[in-house]
Amino acid sequence: MSDDAPVSAAALRGFVSRALAAQGVPEQDADTVAGLMVEADIFGYGTHGVFRLRQYLARLKGGGCNPKAQVKIAHETLATGLIDGDNGLGHLAMTAARDLAIEKARTAGIGWVGVRRGNHAGPLALYVRPQAEAGLIGMAAAVGSANHMPPYGGSDLLLGTNPIAISAPSAGGDPFVLDMATTVAAMGKIKTLIQQGKPMPEGWMVGRDGAPLTDPNRKSEGFLLPIGGPKGFGLSVAIGLLAGVLNGAAFGSEVVDFTSDTTSESNTGQFVMALDPLAFGITDFAERAEKAFAEMRASPPLPGFDPVRLPGDGKTAAAEARRTRGLALNPALRRDLGALADEYGLDASFA
Amino acid sequence: MSDDAPVSAAALRGFVSRALAAQGVPEQDADTVAGLMVEADIFGYGTHGVFRLRQYLARLKGGGCNPKAQVKIAHETLATGLIDGDNGLGHLAMTAARDLAIEKARTAGIGWVGVRRGNHAGPLALYVRPQAEAGLIGMAAAVGSANHMPPYGGSDLLLGTNPIAISAPSAGGDPFVLDMATTVAAMGKIKTLIQQGKPMPEGWMVGRDGAPLTDPNRKSEGFLLPIGGPKGFGLSVAIGLLAGVLNGAAFGSEVVDFTSDTTSESNTGQFVMALDPLAFGITDFAERAEKAFAEMRASPPLPGFDPVRLPGDGKTAAAEARRTRGLALNPALRRDLGALADEYGLDASFA
Repeated sequence: MSDDAPVSAAALRGFVSRALAAQGVPEQDADTVAGLMVEADIFGYGTHGVFRLRQYLARLKGGGCNPKAQVKIAHETLATGLIDGDNGLGHLAMTAARDLAIEKARTAGIGWVGVRRGNHAGPLALYVRPQAEAGLIGMAAAVGSANHMPPYGGSDLLLGTNPIAISAPSAGGDPFVLDMATTVAAMGKIKTLIQQGKPMPEGWMVGRDGAPLTDPNRKSEGFLLPIGGPKGFGLSVAIGLLAGVLNGAAFGSEVVDFTSDTTSESNTGQFVMALDPLAFGITDFAERAEKAFAEMRASPPLPGFDPVRLPGDGKTAAAEARRTRGLALNPALRRDLGALADEYGLDASFA
Repeated sequence: MSDDAPVSAAALRGFVSRALAAQGVPEQDADTVAGLMVEADIFGYGTHGVFRLRQYLARLKGGGCNPKAQVKIAHETLATGLIDGDNGLGHLAMTAARDLAIEKARTAGIGWVGVRRGNHAGPLALYVRPQAEAGLIGMAAAVGSANHMPPYGGSDLLLGTNPIAISAPSAGGDPFVLDMATTVAAMGKIKTLIQQGKPMPEGWMVGRDGAPLTDPNRKSEGFLLPIGGPKGFGLSVAIGLLAGVLNGAAFGSEVVDFTSDTTSESNTGQFVMALDPLAFGITDFAERAEKAFAEMRASPPLPGFDPVRLPGDGKTAAAEARRTRGLALNPALRRDLGALADEYGLDASFA
């Protein structure tokens, strides 16, 4: 960690895995979660990858997250399921949900699997991209792990960034992978700006007076804004119903702020869906999708814009490059991992 | 139609039904579609109700829409289905899709039913509100019936307003019913402004130069904008994949402009979903949802805002009032229905 040379994915995964195991997480679970956290960075979701290790360790140490979780299926039909995450690391429950949804889609055409008693699980893309790579359509959503937004026109923090992700296979180089917060900005991006010492653009947050808030360090004084005003608010509530209420998970004032609270069970709710085009008689979905994407990419850019890109474009090659050449951690993250190694007495020789 | 007295729902339904039947639609289908069109007005979706009769008649007369459609199930699993609308009025295929989705949700926990060879079907709310009223969660989406938006940063019209609707039961007076375009404005609202002679707010459309376009009569010169910029673009494409490509329906350049083209089959794609909370072990979904909604409504309004409302709030009472007291058609629509009666030689005595 003494310089800015790329870090190998395997070495980074080893460090994260040891850090989790030191908090009592069984070796295999620690390796699974570490692998997904590094995978998030490999695919460019830097705000939801290894960057979150500090929070996860704090909640494991503080008792808010159960290191020895026994993930299980609480309810099941041929096409639906509900995973109980036993308050463990969120990646474990979401991996189980994703795999069960894919299995059900293969037999029933669709699989819809909810999660209750989960935790923050990194970027939703981790739980939809595999569907697309397997020729299926994927969808996932989550109740955000802290409330940063009021209902539209209101002033109490009752909603999170409530993200949604949708994926689909394409015959081109990249599957379609959309992974977006229903707020204009995601809290992870604001935290990255704090690390980088940069201001927020106007439109990301407003203060309690309704005026724009651009200092990311003052984020706790203001509100995130939904995309499209009342539309984004409606979408956010719908995601809360589907990912939270439907699974018996937290929503509204029940949501625990997983950043500031290291001791309380969060009962985070999510869902993962998989849908098989073959159930609709479509044997060439990837080719049909690529045809639509190709005509979009060929659309001449408006003045001042880059060429059109679809969500997910370029990620396959970028991930491959990071796998072979290593990950260029930003300096602030590198320092934070070094600090964590000191605080938790870990071997930091991954650089 | 000589004054502005309210029109009874039954009389309006009768007029619409006779107008459709005069174009060769069998009486029972005409009555079903007329009922849904009036229902749209009863629930306040004025841009997607009887207002659309002129377009439907033009496409029936022009051969673009099949009056004698035989709607059938083209593919089916326990939890999924694909309806072939036989290029008939869109309401017929979507009603079949909705009913099949609900039936499957009751047995498999979830029902996901796509539509191909459909047509414009009015507001999606018609195909999700019944789920909520039956204690289920509903979702529906559609490939818009004309392309008014380029891919983000591009300049070719390859995307429609691609709306999505989500519903859920609530123990309060109104189910949650979100029905939104993924564009900032829906084309129906812009058409209403033309009827009313009012300008568009900035932010709804831009011209090919990227500058705001506010004259609704110049809508064909510009582009609709997606909510949240690239996020809304991504959502719009995802809806195109789920409602269009997955069902073998039109997407991208395949989409026929159903307003200007009265002779071509549109192959409109949609889907309807139903999800049963009982499959997730939740027996009190409506109470849990109402608890979350109540705390949102109780959130003190920001300066300058009305009290917080959830999508769907107030619709039950407003619909009941229109059912009993009749519908106050706006003067432009009333004139248009009179003109249609003249053009098609219909008995206009519904007022």
